[in-house]
Amino acid sequence: MANKLRVGILGATGTVGQRFVQLLENHSRFEITALAASDRSQGKTYAEACSWKLAGEIPEAVKSIVVSACEPNLDCDLVFSSLPSEMARETEENFAREGYPVISNSSAFRMDEDVPLLIPEINHDHLKLLEVQKQTRNFKEGGLIVTNPNCSTIVVVMALAPLHYRYGLESVVITTLQAISGAGYPGVASLDITDNIYPFIKGEEEKVESETQRIMGQFQNDKVEYAPFPVSAQTIRVNVVDGHTAAIRFKLKSTPSIEEIKETLSNFSSLPQELKLETAPQRPIIVREEQDRPQPKLDRNAGGGMATSVGRIMHDKVLGYRMIALNHNVIRGAAGAAVLNAELMLSQSLLGAQASRLQ
Amino acid sequence: MANKLRVGILGATGTVGQRFVQLLENHSRFEITALAASDRSQGKTYAEACSWKLAGEIPEAVKSIVVSACEPNLDCDLVFSSLPSEMARETEENFAREGYPVISNSSAFRMDEDVPLLIPEINHDHLKLLEVQKQTRNFKEGGLIVTNPNCSTIVVVMALAPLHYRYGLESVVITTLQAISGAGYPGVASLDITDNIYPFIKGEEEKVESETQRIMGQFQNDKVEYAPFPVSAQTIRVNVVDGHTAAIRFKLKSTPSIEEIKETLSNFSSLPQELKLETAPQRPIIVREEQDRPQPKLDRNAGGGMATSVGRIMHDKVLGYRMIALNHNVIRGAAGAAVLNAELMLSQSLLGAQASRLQ
Amino acid sequence: MANKLRVGILGATGTVGQRFVQLLENHSRFEITALAASDRSQGKTYAEACSWKLAGEIPEAVKSIVVSACEPNLDCDLVFSSLPSEMARETEENFAREGYPVISNSSAFRMDEDVPLLIPEINHDHLKLLEVQKQTRNFKEGGLIVTNPNCSTIVVVMALAPLHYRYGLESVVITTLQAISGAGYPGVASLDITDNIYPFIKGEEEKVESETQRIMGQFQNDKVEYAPFPVSAQTIRVNVVDGHTAAIRFKLKSTPSIEEIKETLSNFSSLPQELKLETAPQRPIIVREEQDRPQPKLDRNAGGGMATSVGRIMHDKVLGYRMIALNHNVIRGAAGAAVLNAELMLSQSLLGAQASRLQ
Amino acid sequence: MANKLRVGILGATGTVGQRFVQLLENHSRFEITALAASDRSQGKTYAEACSWKLAGEIPEAVKSIVVSACEPNLDCDLVFSSLPSEMARETEENFAREGYPVISNSSAFRMDEDVPLLIPEINHDHLKLLEVQKQTRNFKEGGLIVTNPNCSTIVVVMALAPLHYRYGLESVVITTLQAISGAGYPGVASLDITDNIYPFIKGEEEKVESETQRIMGQFQNDKVEYAPFPVSAQTIRVNVVDGHTAAIRFKLKSTPSIEEIKETLSNFSSLPQELKLETAPQRPIIVREEQDRPQPKLDRNAGGGMATSVGRIMHDKVLGYRMIALNHNVIRGAAGAAVLNAELMLSQSLLGAQASRLQ
Repeated sequence: MANKLRVGILGATGTVGQRFVQLLENHSRFEITALAASDRSQGKTYAEACSWKLAGEIPEAVKSIVVSACEPNLDCDLVFSSLPSEMARETEENFAREGYPVISNSSAFRMDEDVPLLIPEINHDHLKLLEVQKQTRNFKEGGLIVTNPNCSTIVVVMALAPLHYRYGLESVVITTLQAISGAGYPGVASLDITDNIYPFIKGEEEKVESETQRIMGQFQNDKVEYAPFPVSAQTIRVNVVDGHTAAIRFKLKSTPSIEEIKETLSNFSSLPQELKLETAPQRPIIVREEQDRPQPKLDRNAGGGMATSVGRIMHDKVLGYRMIALNHNVIRGAAGAAVLNAELMLSQSLLGAQASRLQ
Repeated sequence: MANKLRVGILGATGTVGQRFVQLLENHSRFEITALAASDRSQGKTYAEACSWKLAGEIPEAVKSIVVSACEPNLDCDLVFSSLPSEMARETEENFAREGYPVISNSSAFRMDEDVPLLIPEINHDHLKLLEVQKQTRNFKEGGLIVTNPNCSTIVVVMALAPLHYRYGLESVVITTLQAISGAGYPGVASLDITDNIYPFIKGEEEKVESETQRIMGQFQNDKVEYAPFPVSAQTIRVNVVDGHTAAIRFKLKSTPSIEEIKETLSNFSSLPQELKLETAPQRPIIVREEQDRPQPKLDRNAGGGMATSVGRIMHDKVLGYRMIALNHNVIRGAAGAAVLNAELMLSQSLLGAQASRLQ
Repeated sequence: MANKLRVGILGATGTVGQRFVQLLENHSRFEITALAASDRSQGKTYAEACSWKLAGEIPEAVKSIVVSACEPNLDCDLVFSSLPSEMARETEENFAREGYPVISNSSAFRMDEDVPLLIPEINHDHLKLLEVQKQTRNFKEGGLIVTNPNCSTIVVVMALAPLHYRYGLESVVITTLQAISGAGYPGVASLDITDNIYPFIKGEEEKVESETQRIMGQFQNDKVEYAPFPVSAQTIRVNVVDGHTAAIRFKLKSTPSIEEIKETLSNFSSLPQELKLETAPQRPIIVREEQDRPQPKLDRNAGGGMATSVGRIMHDKVLGYRMIALNHNVIRGAAGAAVLNAELMLSQSLLGAQASRLQ
Repeated sequence: MANKLRVGILGATGTVGQRFVQLLENHSRFEITALAASDRSQGKTYAEACSWKLAGEIPEAVKSIVVSACEPNLDCDLVFSSLPSEMARETEENFAREGYPVISNSSAFRMDEDVPLLIPEINHDHLKLLEVQKQTRNFKEGGLIVTNPNCSTIVVVMALAPLHYRYGLESVVITTLQAISGAGYPGVASLDITDNIYPFIKGEEEKVESETQRIMGQFQNDKVEYAPFPVSAQTIRVNVVDGHTAAIRFKLKSTPSIEEIKETLSNFSSLPQELKLETAPQRPIIVREEQDRPQPKLDRNAGGGMATSVGRIMHDKVLGYRMIALNHNVIRGAAGAAVLNAELMLSQSLLGAQASRLQ
């Protein structure tokens, strides 16, 4: 395993942490050497500490790793973080300060001016912010923070960015139907969601609105100018295990045909595909022609959970266009997003000394 | 029971038919004397023919009524219809032609120029179309057709019309999360909706878009001019038993404060309330201040299932305003809507000879 | 309200506490004058402290009651308790010691030799234990503790006791399918129960097995001799909001026909029915003849949630007989059970000085 | 593909038919060359005819196969059948009469004296019935019928047979919690199962009771003597997509310790494992030690959906022992069961001329 980067996971016992463990089980470039979590888990083996909630077994390789405290003394070359936001800010900064690259799924740093909010297919040029970050922050050599967006932002941006770059977005109206796994474990109480929808997800509407503008913003003069189009998001929890759906209306600066829009989305491919990054789906966007697709149960695992499925693309009487988009909120929307970020950074020699050693 | 109108129900064994039976059980002005349904049920008693799917028992009074064919020879003064749309057009017209008032929940005649598409609180003046209808159609004395809107249209119009009349709507963007009972029985297959959402409901988006404009349209020169604002609807099935939720954005001609909007909705009251119609909710619109309301499980039965609950009213970055609205799709959205229509018509002496006899 | 007993509720903000509030809203003999809960709620009004999870609104009468600590200085004549078991033992004893009658839904004292484990229709004679209790415990005048069984025990005992008393049970095999509301709020995580069943409920199998024997046991020589038949219980959580179902096999000492068993159950009536206690269902057991009943959604509210529905009664190849039984776990199985206990005790002049004053 | 048997699927568009297609996609010994279904589908390509309900896409290789009538003129070496029982009897016999080996998942022939009801790990010796069948029936050379059990029987037998063969079963009491996919598509109406359990599955209890005895019966004197122990089954539908759970009590002739029972189950291995049949799970039975396992969502896909997971093995007060068992009802319980049957038959040179050609 000499050619693998050694990886630590912060928040390893949670829903996203478990997905990190699952996704990295057979990864060719990363191997898990450290698992860190909250007080309650520390000192136990991962198998003891973790109430495993994914189908299939805990991978053998990590079962006996002893869970550490989230202190920047882990034996690894980088960390993936899925810490709860309330503790992420301080802890992640501690790690970066000590020279660890931090690839974070938490919201803590997403809107910091010098922190890339990255979707490799969409705004890989925002990685240039790392140069700014290096000058702004007092991190030891190699230390850095890169974030991925909120799970519902990702589905929206994946479906819209190719259209924005080609036709120009003027405004976007999003209504999400979000899976329960997005709230972690124990997360949503069954009494709140069985025979019910739950119309409030704390902070979510604000995140989708602002993150969308930041990701599609332009990098210039050492910062990201937010995309100028307004975004409206209503975010609703529904009784689905995995898979966030977004009902999207959008107004464009030009008037492409529905057929052209489908082609633009279908043909979309970007740097991760070109570089054949391990976690990158071959086709980032799958356009469904059936009138009743996409559906979470049928489409969330497309492209290994990394592809975005889009359907019901048609004209809209108010905004001009509409569609339904969907992806797997814990894979493309969280753990897989961070892993793809790390793969891209590794390919760009951005994971520090350790990484360059391995190129 | 001399002062009660005798009522027949077309489509009596279906989901909406059962609700008619339940809602009319103790009604002071209507009593069920005839039940009609498809071939399979005819000749059986209602208790035998009907696979009762509501909590509670089949009302004693109807258990032994023998189910008839849907032929216009029923022993009753008016009929409520919840026939499937494919057979509603011919059957309902047959009844009206023979002099029966037909209060229909079916979509067949909703968009016919001379047929009222009625929500008593909103457009009771559209009942004037009955004068036109009398001249257009060759119905025997007393025969008429009045319809109520689609179940998801009703929630939208209830929440928006008070604002439209006061501030003027410029455009409306609706995303519905609709309950499975809206599809009847057997309706939605459990394999399509468990751990899933289903993004397609046949004909629904078109209905919500056009019915909304028709109901809020103005009656003038013997016809209804559609309201001029564009409506966009995406309609999605979710795993909820009863209760349609609508995420609504809307643009107004003026700029009332959120507080003013809440007051306008909260204070809304109309003719059915003034007349104290039996099925009319005391407060047609209930404004919820909690950040996580309305919810189907908690709010669908407000006002006996006849009130519309509205919450999360706030500014919206694209359309200006947004909110979440909800009501019971089978009561306010179907059977209860038709019963309220009949109550209003009865109070307006519009139910023909029989009715005037009873005033 | 001079003729009402003043009632306090311990654990008033929880799932069962909310049901107490709802069930007592219009009660003719009890009125709520005190609400007590954990630290977090104390000092707030009930409306502020309580995240109300039942359909309908918090009753006006209790909205502004300030939530107290669970200390035995409440302004009331008796307390209903739905405290979590870990704190119930000490707190309930504190109240009884200070002279409060404690009508408890908690498990803390259920198996104490001198505490009645009461189902009014089944073992009202066990109230004689209160004489023993008076001598055993150092309670102030009026202080006492009476408990009701576990929510799944009640459905089993209601369905079996009439048969036991008539034919004699030799053994019982029970498999429960229990609703999520039985675990309180937040209770069961949606990720554990959506598209899933959960085969473990802590302590439940032991409770059903032992409580069943205790309730059907005979009171003699100042104590309850456990019923001698062995009971096997496997208890499973399923994705149902309200309504516990039990699949029951049973062996009898004699061999009545299926018809006789149905009649025995159908005709069962007991002291609460004779006394016309307010919460007592007219028919404690409803025998369903349909092959697909009882079902939680259709039958849980039978008899105001207080009746037990039984169906699929037939011969069994191993035990001789089998059936499916069901009732509402939060009404008949918890809050309603305790209210009925109190009604019976009130009618028997067992609620102390206060009660006798009101007789 | 010269070394593959050419396979036809009867009932190819249904829930089980789709699983056959999915499971055979990359099979080393079978390739699909014919798909047959009901009238409505005939003449369309499979992609057109089939409303695909499984995650992932329809395999490319079958998309353009034109769906045939279920007539015994298909271009294939054997057929898998998942026909509805009402048409299975005639159709399957037609195929066998014309010389096709019929590997059936239907119930039509399961209890016929000369037809193997086969679980390869359990009663492979029952294949000797094919000799009897050859003499009894007028099938052309190669024609035969082999069946697999009902989906809920399989989970029960897999968990019990190793114990029966070692310790001797005296009686068995089974309560199943069955997934909705077991009823096919559209199958269970969502209104019947959302927030509900459904206590009746037509014919299921009888099937589990009789099939269990037949499978564990002894082959002697050219027939199968049913196992002598009585079986009681109550079968209940629950709101789970895939995965049947069985709560099982059982009485043994001897009194092994719980530890011995676990070892017997854990170590169980049989002919399919020995032969390393392609679909055979490496470990047929997985014993879970966690107190809350097995669970459908976590365990149904164990061993590629072919392993049976067993947990909560403990003493029982009435029958002596109890446990919870679970497997994937559409894979191990239906399509995978039939494929494994075919693999075993192929290895035993029982698939006729075609098969021997391939050995």
